[in-house]
Amino acid sequence: MNYSIVRYFVGWVLLAVGAFMLIPTALALISGDGVGTAFALSASLALAAGFVSCCVKPHDRSMYSKEGFAAVSLGWIAMSLVGALPLWISGFTPSFTDALFEVISGFTTTGASILTDVEALPPSLLLWRSLTHWIGGMGVLMFLLAILPAAGGDNLMLMKAESPGPSVGKLVPRLRKTAVYLYGIYLVLTVLEIILLLLGNMSLLDALCIGLATAGTGGFGVQSDSLASSSTYIQVVVTAFMFIFGVNFNFYFYLIIRRAKAAFGMEEVRWYLVIFAAAVLLVTGCLYADGVYGSVLLCLKYAAFQCASVMTTTGFASADFNLWPMFSKAVLLLLMFVGGCAGSTAGGVKVSRIIMYVKSFGRELSQMLHPRRVKLVTMDGKAIEPAVMNTAFSFLVAYCLLFGLSLLAVAIDGRGFTTSFTAVLACLNNVGPGLGEVGPMGSFAMLSPFTKYVLMFDMLAGRLELFPMLLLFAPGTWKR
Amino acid sequence: MNYSIVRYFVGWVLLAVGAFMLIPTALALISGDGVGTAFALSASLALAAGFVSCCVKPHDRSMYSKEGFAAVSLGWIAMSLVGALPLWISGFTPSFTDALFEVISGFTTTGASILTDVEALPPSLLLWRSLTHWIGGMGVLMFLLAILPAAGGDNLMLMKAESPGPSVGKLVPRLRKTAVYLYGIYLVLTVLEIILLLLGNMSLLDALCIGLATAGTGGFGVQSDSLASSSTYIQVVVTAFMFIFGVNFNFYFYLIIRRAKAAFGMEEVRWYLVIFAAAVLLVTGCLYADGVYGSVLLCLKYAAFQCASVMTTTGFASADFNLWPMFSKAVLLLLMFVGGCAGSTAGGVKVSRIIMYVKSFGRELSQMLHPRRVKLVTMDGKAIEPAVMNTAFSFLVAYCLLFGLSLLAVAIDGRGFTTSFTAVLACLNNVGPGLGEVGPMGSFAMLSPFTKYVLMFDMLAGRLELFPMLLLFAPGTWKR
Repeated sequence: MNYSIVRYFVGWVLLAVGAFMLIPTALALISGDGVGTAFALSASLALAAGFVSCCVKPHDRSMYSKEGFAAVSLGWIAMSLVGALPLWISGFTPSFTDALFEVISGFTTTGASILTDVEALPPSLLLWRSLTHWIGGMGVLMFLLAILPAAGGDNLMLMKAESPGPSVGKLVPRLRKTAVYLYGIYLVLTVLEIILLLLGNMSLLDALCIGLATAGTGGFGVQSDSLASSSTYIQVVVTAFMFIFGVNFNFYFYLIIRRAKAAFGMEEVRWYLVIFAAAVLLVTGCLYADGVYGSVLLCLKYAAFQCASVMTTTGFASADFNLWPMFSKAVLLLLMFVGGCAGSTAGGVKVSRIIMYVKSFGRELSQMLHPRRVKLVTMDGKAIEPAVMNTAFSFLVAYCLLFGLSLLAVAIDGRGFTTSFTAVLACLNNVGPGLGEVGPMGSFAMLSPFTKYVLMFDMLAGRLELFPMLLLFAPGTWKR
Repeated sequence: MNYSIVRYFVGWVLLAVGAFMLIPTALALISGDGVGTAFALSASLALAAGFVSCCVKPHDRSMYSKEGFAAVSLGWIAMSLVGALPLWISGFTPSFTDALFEVISGFTTTGASILTDVEALPPSLLLWRSLTHWIGGMGVLMFLLAILPAAGGDNLMLMKAESPGPSVGKLVPRLRKTAVYLYGIYLVLTVLEIILLLLGNMSLLDALCIGLATAGTGGFGVQSDSLASSSTYIQVVVTAFMFIFGVNFNFYFYLIIRRAKAAFGMEEVRWYLVIFAAAVLLVTGCLYADGVYGSVLLCLKYAAFQCASVMTTTGFASADFNLWPMFSKAVLLLLMFVGGCAGSTAGGVKVSRIIMYVKSFGRELSQMLHPRRVKLVTMDGKAIEPAVMNTAFSFLVAYCLLFGLSLLAVAIDGRGFTTSFTAVLACLNNVGPGLGEVGPMGSFAMLSPFTKYVLMFDMLAGRLELFPMLLLFAPGTWKR
């Protein structure tokens, strides 16, 4: 392990987070909402720590997978620690554990909250919560790749370790340009949503917060009932943008370079659309059959919102789906597992992996019938390499193992099975709300500190696609 | 597909089941418990149908995977249909659906029951329920392989399709001799348990029923409270034998041929022991800490019984673990997923697959740290072939897909999440009891017929290791 390069990158991460923190600091100081000092202190600390960490450039610039994974996982832990400071110093969370939980939930775009009264937060803290979603959505190291001149070494490692999905490719030959493109698309879409929200008579602060939280598929709201009391227009806009941010960003890139055929030919995007449409149909039918809402159109509105919300792992709620019929809840639970597309800001297992799993299963069945026939698993017309396939399988194994162990650890808290199971599910897949006590109108506040730390680990592991966080426990990672 | 050979084997399966049915028929006629006619009628029907199906030997004896899988899945469906007749004709189940559920639960060694008052059953029906466990535990086609002269063709297919575990090998070069050895070990161990139960002052019928149900790791009891009101001696004997029947039978074979070193060197058996011991320790600690039972020894007794019961997927209960603390329940749930060893009569994912998953995950982590180092996954000192590994991964994928779809289907019934989830878990892994309404003191009686059929499919799929049942839906299976 080349410790200096890891230190160097963690320093840059802290600098970036410190810089981002200047936005709510400014808002706090200008609006005089009382948390200006807390923010100024936190931002200074982040910037100072970042500066100390990266003022000395490492002599050895060599960077391999090991260093890439470590820089990402340690960078994310470091930025969570400083990101939690404003909440803690200002005293709006009862403990540092709670502040850390809230900010990790923010950066990992989970949206699970330990706050029971969101309305009590001052504007700058609300903005910071939503901003953590936006930063975490596309990734802070991706941001650094976009703004920093190439730091030498193999930085593709960083991108691979931070970006969601089984196979991350560069859009254009130069890595930096790829990062610029991705952040550009991200920014434009975010601004577009904020404008549309403003047109729906939302206040500027609310529109900013909801827009940033949708873009990162995070889910922190500005009201305790999430978006249940918002107008239909707002709910429809948010539904559309949740769906949009769950699409693989390569799709938008293809559209920009006017390769519409390539864009609409993307298998992952097609499956994403089909799964979403099927889920909306099923939930709408169930809600209507059970007479939960009066008209089909109303059922459709609620179903589309909630399906988009949990499939993209955003976690906004326009109704307390914890009270919906079991069949609807089962559809939503399965969508939580599936998640959005790779290369989007969404969490979950990712549609592309689901495709790989389903296709490899189909191949296995076919080979059982015809043992001598060799069949390849393909995606977008190309054969999937065995190594990529193996990593995808290992992801499934790691996912199941981590899920099981987390369930065991969370069970110590003594909550019911539904609460324990969906708390893990909602955190590991970065969804936010689960069922039972951690349902959309519930909170994670009452959980024990130990449980909260387990779930924090799950949120980070889920956001970074398991391996970077799990490798922290491999002794081989720390060998020089 | 060579239809004639499939018909031929299904016929033999029916003959075998008809022959087994003569045992409870004799008991019913001798004891005059009122169901003699029902049994005689059912047995005659099974024998007649079997005779008609296999009286004409197929000209084409060629048998490939396809035919092997179809013979197994259709054979199991056929024997379930005739096996349900005595319960249905005698009127002890409210419908044919319920009778079928009970018997599929029996043959697949699940032990989930739709009966609410087991004590009301006449002796012959109790014996038949337990006998179905015993027949299904080792497998009826395995039985045929043991008694029939080689029917020509590749019968290893049949063994592979019916036996639990990722890699089935012949113990001795001749397949028939392997089957004879396995059934021999099975019979001797069963008789041993029955004798020990009789020494504990159990009645002959009860000892027979409990012995047969333990051997098949089934779990049908003779009392509504399962084994909760039995003596400590009986509970300890059953604990030991549940554990014994969850061990890979190769272990016993090695002991018989005096290769103790090979026996105790089996990685799967070691892992099985370690997982079991760890689970017992955790549950004992939890029960004691929560003050559920007075003394440590008492906690240990209940913990060992319940862990052995769910890990081997037997499903007996010595207490209502639905009322235990959540942590104990979480340990039991995870054990249900793990299951027993391959090549035993237990269900679940199987310890050997868990080993393969964990090891392949470890290899992936190591390859992330050292991309150029090639590492093989080994078991018992031998490298696992990529094809076997791929099938194991496909099993995991199929398992997750089937679990998700089943949960969706069961959710239509509108039960709570805990009940829906654990009903699928308990049936797919052939455990028997789940949590909530389908807990150890509950019943599957109140579920809708549709839910029952979904769970019946899951039980069969779980017992036959998914693929034979899933291949029934592949159009390729039915092509001539």
